[in-house]
Amino acid sequence: MPVATFVLPASLALQLLSGAAPAKPAAPAATAVSATGAKAAAPATGAKAAAPAYSQAVAEKLIGPALTEGQAYARLAELTDGIGPRLSGSEAAEAAVQWALRSFKADGVKAWTEPVKVPRWVRGEERGEVLASERTRGHPLSLLALGGSPPTAPEGLTAEVVEVTSLEELAALGGAVKGKIVFFNHTMSVAADYGRFAGLRGRGPAVAAKAGAVGALVRSLATASLRTPHTGSTRFEDGGPRIPAASIATEDADLLHRMLAGGAVRVKVVLGSSELPDADSHNVIAEVRGREKPQEIVLISAHLDSWDVGTGAHDDGAGVVMVMEAARLIAKLPQAPRRTVRVVLFMNEENGLRGARAYAEAHAAELPRHVAAMEMDAGGGRPLGVSLRAGAGGQELVRPWLKPLVALGAGTFSAREAGGADLSPMVSARVPFFGVEVDSSRYFDVHHTMADTLDKVDPQDLARSTAATAWATYALAEMPGLLVRPEPPPVPSGPPAVSPAKASGH
Amino acid sequence: MPVATFVLPASLALQLLSGAAPAKPAAPAATAVSATGAKAAAPATGAKAAAPAYSQAVAEKLIGPALTEGQAYARLAELTDGIGPRLSGSEAAEAAVQWALRSFKADGVKAWTEPVKVPRWVRGEERGEVLASERTRGHPLSLLALGGSPPTAPEGLTAEVVEVTSLEELAALGGAVKGKIVFFNHTMSVAADYGRFAGLRGRGPAVAAKAGAVGALVRSLATASLRTPHTGSTRFEDGGPRIPAASIATEDADLLHRMLAGGAVRVKVVLGSSELPDADSHNVIAEVRGREKPQEIVLISAHLDSWDVGTGAHDDGAGVVMVMEAARLIAKLPQAPRRTVRVVLFMNEENGLRGARAYAEAHAAELPRHVAAMEMDAGGGRPLGVSLRAGAGGQELVRPWLKPLVALGAGTFSAREAGGADLSPMVSARVPFFGVEVDSSRYFDVHHTMADTLDKVDPQDLARSTAATAWATYALAEMPGLLVRPEPPPVPSGPPAVSPAKASGH
Repeated sequence: MPVATFVLPASLALQLLSGAAPAKPAAPAATAVSATGAKAAAPATGAKAAAPAYSQAVAEKLIGPALTEGQAYARLAELTDGIGPRLSGSEAAEAAVQWALRSFKADGVKAWTEPVKVPRWVRGEERGEVLASERTRGHPLSLLALGGSPPTAPEGLTAEVVEVTSLEELAALGGAVKGKIVFFNHTMSVAADYGRFAGLRGRGPAVAAKAGAVGALVRSLATASLRTPHTGSTRFEDGGPRIPAASIATEDADLLHRMLAGGAVRVKVVLGSSELPDADSHNVIAEVRGREKPQEIVLISAHLDSWDVGTGAHDDGAGVVMVMEAARLIAKLPQAPRRTVRVVLFMNEENGLRGARAYAEAHAAELPRHVAAMEMDAGGGRPLGVSLRAGAGGQELVRPWLKPLVALGAGTFSAREAGGADLSPMVSARVPFFGVEVDSSRYFDVHHTMADTLDKVDPQDLARSTAATAWATYALAEMPGLLVRPEPPPVPSGPPAVSPAKASGH
Repeated sequence: MPVATFVLPASLALQLLSGAAPAKPAAPAATAVSATGAKAAAPATGAKAAAPAYSQAVAEKLIGPALTEGQAYARLAELTDGIGPRLSGSEAAEAAVQWALRSFKADGVKAWTEPVKVPRWVRGEERGEVLASERTRGHPLSLLALGGSPPTAPEGLTAEVVEVTSLEELAALGGAVKGKIVFFNHTMSVAADYGRFAGLRGRGPAVAAKAGAVGALVRSLATASLRTPHTGSTRFEDGGPRIPAASIATEDADLLHRMLAGGAVRVKVVLGSSELPDADSHNVIAEVRGREKPQEIVLISAHLDSWDVGTGAHDDGAGVVMVMEAARLIAKLPQAPRRTVRVVLFMNEENGLRGARAYAEAHAAELPRHVAAMEMDAGGGRPLGVSLRAGAGGQELVRPWLKPLVALGAGTFSAREAGGADLSPMVSARVPFFGVEVDSSRYFDVHHTMADTLDKVDPQDLARSTAATAWATYALAEMPGLLVRPEPPPVPSGPPAVSPAKASGH
């Protein structure tokens, strides 16, 4: 959809969103209810509404342009159409770094890079087939090697398939998978299922390898499919056995399941992937310095890298342009917020979290002064609410500042705890996390596929989530009180095996 | 879904469908209304319902098993999982012929083959890309050669792209497309749009070639896409210029459109297709001989060939198993219907209609005794109604026989005229056409794609349309009266350039 179709005059847009007539800029009591919670609901008539905790003029200056200028969507087009897929270590990933620097500069936001050594996994030729038998003439498999998979021998890998639906089932099979290709099947049907089954992709192949399997096929973690495989990262232990591993389209998983009901099934897989030496890359960091407490940092982030299929429009181009736009709009305010707003565009979220670790390491001394951190990494859907991970009293502190989010549909706290894969190395430093939750119900239709392209992002949804991100960032940087830091994790945390954020749907 | 999950006891299924309590086998007045039309509606109370025009016991014997035995779905699994894609001239197409013969034999239905010479077009390597420019690092194109496309040179075809949205727009460009690749874009969004835009695929490349274009890219005729190209037939004139032609995914069409808004775009396409000599193939014909008027033929049909991507589950495996099952169930009746029921499984509907022409030619002398003909070729969706193409009084003649279809959702006449690509050579012989209309609203999500696989067919929808087909076939073969033959077409008809049925959505 052309950008022009969703641009409204700022005044009209704000009027529509606030539900207020232009003559009544003070927020009406009715919209205050969900922002302040049912207990604090103002009476519908009679009582005079209390003055808001924040400047309405600033809210208009952030939300109005985010909804009307189409800048986030235009930037997303530059990143996806212009640069395209940007897997860590690729030329395109470096082009994305340079694009981000140029864009921040054009926005008048100070930006720099910080070095990150990243893995460089490169996809090669890949194909597979169900071999003919007395029950079938054979079928091609629609597959994608999982990131981190070693290659097969050039002539491919041919073996019998063993189906399992869980790691427990795999363990119960013991040595029976020796010499076989383990096929991880599951029942994912909605986005909320992702966390339940992501471990089959992330850890399944390593576990199968230890049991003597020679390959792994994982049913795509998908909520829609037109024979569409979904890639993603799989992890092998250092020094442990590594076997070729690929995702297959749900249709092909269904086919294997049906075929296996009738007897033995053999498949042939050819994967030509390669692991090159680690490459030099960068996080991109930008800052709007706080006017009163510049040493206190509100970090907002997304990841600049994407998988090598599709153009990473939802994952995580949308998050990138949301936080860039938040910084641009905040930088344009007549007065900077109290605290410093720092944008981090992490490199290598998808297959290594190296950027997240490099940032946490390089800025370890600063982390106690990180008063809030947010990562946008659940696609470009419309905003649904906000989330928090902080000590006692956090919601009460933030709630009065949520009112401008009500008309955007994001004025209430979600049940989910805030997080983000790239934030996970900050958990041990007890950084409070904040989040703008977006509608991810269709995110896994395209997640990690060649279909994650610009057309899948609705410009109006993106504009609304951008507006919510800009306002939430400002609120955290401006509100007088500070979030209490959350309790430390029960055990000293190293890099998490499966980050909580990834496991819960991002 | 396993077949077992939708199998109900026949008695219960019929009870649910008829809306009648088991103690009242006579059709209730309420369900008679839509079967007999508003004018003939029986009073809701008081009057005694007229005896139906048909045997209720026969209706139960056809509809009950179709809904409860799961035979159509099991057969569809054999055809799609067992044999797979079956483009005319391929070994798989011949395997499908042998499978159909074996299946009819197992069903106790007399069957034979009749020879058809078919084209043999074979897909080869195929890929394409938007070339890098100052505006993009370049993009792969998700494409499929159109059936009938010649290959490019081995090194591929590289040229600038010119976008058009209609053949008129192409004509207006005149010589401006010389040396260019014409990109046919359009706005198909729902199934009903297919007829409006199918000509861009079918005739666009030939027209572009005549204007001097060196290649053609056609936006897929799709109602959903996950970067999913839809193939299909394109036709060049004998002796006219032929250029490489491919369909591209809607996402890639959107990308080209966006890129073209910014300036010139060059693409590179490599197609390795080849046209081999015509091959020997067959229509499969089966018959249940009529008990009173065996010389009168009710023809029911579908096409056995499919495109070479996907397994042709909806197109037209579903139609094949519906008509096979209709014949099986009719053959099992204690008494054959008055007229002969003839099943024809046509070869080469997709890229030539050679089977349809061979049948019409070989059976020319018999066509005046074809009293009705039907082709099921709109997918395996649930039944929505019936359709007719006949002379005066046809609906009135058939309507009293539609009552058993009411509870299946198919008891009324659709606004559409009955037809079918393979029936088109019978138009000049004035054969009356009948149809069971099915829900095709999602048909073009998978039509002519690798995603047209068994999982896309809902077993319950298929069972219902199979039941409707079986009953409609029986009704046409048993009802006392004969349909009046339709008027001859205004001009003597040769093989149609674009068959009316294909153009209207099949």
